[in-house]
Amino acid sequence: MTPKQVKIAVLGCGTVGSQVVRLLSERGEDYAQRCGADLDLIGVAVRSLEAPRPQGVPRELLTSDAEDLIDAADIVVELIGGIEPARTFVLRALRRGVTVVTGNKALLASCGPELFDAAQHANADLYFEAAVAGAVPVVYALRESLAGDHVTDVLGIVNGTTNYILDEMTRSGRSYEEALARAQELGYAEADPSADVDGYDAAAKCAILASLAFHTRVGIDDVDVTGMSDITAADIEQARAGGCVIKLLAHAHRVRVGEREAVSVRVAPTLVERDNPLASITGAFNAVVVDAEAAGRLMFYGQGAGGVQTASAVLSDVVAAATHVAHGGAAPREQTYESLEILPAAQARSAFEVRLILADRTGVLAEIAQVFASHDLSVAALTQTAREETGCSALTLTTHETTLGALEGALADLRELACVKRVERVLSREG
Amino acid sequence: MTPKQVKIAVLGCGTVGSQVVRLLSERGEDYAQRCGADLDLIGVAVRSLEAPRPQGVPRELLTSDAEDLIDAADIVVELIGGIEPARTFVLRALRRGVTVVTGNKALLASCGPELFDAAQHANADLYFEAAVAGAVPVVYALRESLAGDHVTDVLGIVNGTTNYILDEMTRSGRSYEEALARAQELGYAEADPSADVDGYDAAAKCAILASLAFHTRVGIDDVDVTGMSDITAADIEQARAGGCVIKLLAHAHRVRVGEREAVSVRVAPTLVERDNPLASITGAFNAVVVDAEAAGRLMFYGQGAGGVQTASAVLSDVVAAATHVAHGGAAPREQTYESLEILPAAQARSAFEVRLILADRTGVLAEIAQVFASHDLSVAALTQTAREETGCSALTLTTHETTLGALEGALADLRELACVKRVERVLSREG
Repeated sequence: MTPKQVKIAVLGCGTVGSQVVRLLSERGEDYAQRCGADLDLIGVAVRSLEAPRPQGVPRELLTSDAEDLIDAADIVVELIGGIEPARTFVLRALRRGVTVVTGNKALLASCGPELFDAAQHANADLYFEAAVAGAVPVVYALRESLAGDHVTDVLGIVNGTTNYILDEMTRSGRSYEEALARAQELGYAEADPSADVDGYDAAAKCAILASLAFHTRVGIDDVDVTGMSDITAADIEQARAGGCVIKLLAHAHRVRVGEREAVSVRVAPTLVERDNPLASITGAFNAVVVDAEAAGRLMFYGQGAGGVQTASAVLSDVVAAATHVAHGGAAPREQTYESLEILPAAQARSAFEVRLILADRTGVLAEIAQVFASHDLSVAALTQTAREETGCSALTLTTHETTLGALEGALADLRELACVKRVERVLSREG
Repeated sequence: MTPKQVKIAVLGCGTVGSQVVRLLSERGEDYAQRCGADLDLIGVAVRSLEAPRPQGVPRELLTSDAEDLIDAADIVVELIGGIEPARTFVLRALRRGVTVVTGNKALLASCGPELFDAAQHANADLYFEAAVAGAVPVVYALRESLAGDHVTDVLGIVNGTTNYILDEMTRSGRSYEEALARAQELGYAEADPSADVDGYDAAAKCAILASLAFHTRVGIDDVDVTGMSDITAADIEQARAGGCVIKLLAHAHRVRVGEREAVSVRVAPTLVERDNPLASITGAFNAVVVDAEAAGRLMFYGQGAGGVQTASAVLSDVVAAATHVAHGGAAPREQTYESLEILPAAQARSAFEVRLILADRTGVLAEIAQVFASHDLSVAALTQTAREETGCSALTLTTHETTLGALEGALADLRELACVKRVERVLSREG
């Protein structure tokens, strides 16, 4: 029996695309065994035919006509990144019933509903393991391994750049600026690092994780985002003194509001206690902790970026997609059968740590405590330290779990007090 | 449109089975959404209809006629454990083309080829996520998430009982016997702990992991097994002094032997350096580290045992199986297209740590070093310490990576030396 042929088109030939092309040719026999079909790479669409390409990319496969290539393919692998022209190409493929594999988190988090609707309408399949946490198979875990369970919480380090910077600050005592410069030297951060350090990359991944975990649509605009570029060496030192490290975390929680369930999604620099497995994730690694009712706590750990690592995730999707193209059956579909409310940021629940700079005179503690009590905020711990600023002390308060809104109410009142010079830092804290 | 009905039969109603029955009824609506089909639990086969059952198991579903139940089902969930009658029931189902979901590692590792052949012959599907590492989705990871990659090494803590005992010995300084008694009190160890502490449970899981990772058939008899019941408090203390903890590890490696590839599989108590992520896996948790060519290093972590946790893994398989039953398509099949040689234990490669008790006189180090050199064994480190035994010293040697066979050759010669009182301990060491 002649094995079936599945025609693969790759769009984009950057760091990930070129690795996908190389592995498709080097590991072709393995993939054929695993799919029960030959994977036939019919072309690689690029913007410029003349640009230099890494070794292992056959020039005769390059084309600048993405649309013709899409129309001839069984599976389109979109690795262009960004919104356009990726969106147009992906929609073209899906509308023709062509399976799409993408690693494009920005596209999914911004245009997910449009893509999923197009896929459903044309009975096409959309795979996106590579869009979250690179080689870490957390999309599979949520879509399939936890299909028999009820996920309540997802907490993740899903941006390697910011984890590298924060880890470098923690290990060396360097400032944010110095650690960023080091990350840029090593290729872990872009020349313009804003998508990473301002939290938008993590927010896109947070939206995708929440959609999968809670079976409801969550877009990037639903995610409350706080970046980490204003974290200082002093914050890191303060965290250490309190038995914590600072991590930029994606938080996705299923919460009960009265009779209903809702979803809370946010990205924020967070104090993580040293016993938490996320505290030990160093360098540019990613890790996602999932809590499910039956399974309990699971953690997935690995490399969240890098061309060849991300290519591994893309190719697992290609093998699954090709198996379905060749042998039929039900591919994983968007499963957003719940329509859960997205909680406003003010209702997000967490323990918080607040650092206040106070006039150093007797009676201030009582005034502060009074404000917290009047907002029904329960204080778990506090530490007061003298400061070099003349006549000032720093007070660090840790609250029990509360809402961001309740905390902000208290902070507004605190700012009115004469004894409060300023609110220096507010961070979520995870046990 | 009336949703499709998929008939589920559960065999066995112990700690896992009763949780599966409970969750099938409590989460039925979720599962229906996820499968596009209603899961209809048609019966639960038990040995005794009179035995007491946990709440949530409807007595009217119990039957003592497993065969009739199997013959009426679309999916059989086998949670009896052990070889017989589980083997007979699973074969009956598969031969009739009925999908089987099992958590039975002993059955798979002992009778895998017979089951997979029966499944293939009747075009039936066999799922077994729960057979390895409980709720930790490592079977999915190897079968699907890494389908686009080339796995080279799998290293795992896959037995929670022994990890609890070793962790307890490490944290409290207790002896093996005391730690075992504590594990038995807490329900982490059986009254007869031999399957766990002698390494056979881990060996069954090691065989399953190796089969999945390397696409070749590996059975429990292929695995070289060393148990951990002779590990002493002194070994644990010695490990700590050397910057390590002792873990019972399943090792599965793809190795090159001349022109060919082969597989090395073994279970052994192993020194794990403190920086290795496996060193920090405490209590009864499980963790599996997978190294793949493109993805690099991944780790999967979670609860490896427990009724409800294992039920989560069983139900993820049930959801996948029901989706396939209702909507057709290619379910994951055994993919053993490679026929890799299983390396004899003597050829397993590792760094080793050897503790020798020596007569305490000058010149012994030179004699020892000469033996290692004559066997072409390169020594990475050595430490000599005085011992309470009169006139003795202890010498701890760490080798560079070598084969177990080469090491045993050297040990045989060492035992011939007058200055060597005894070889006290030999352990593999992982960086």
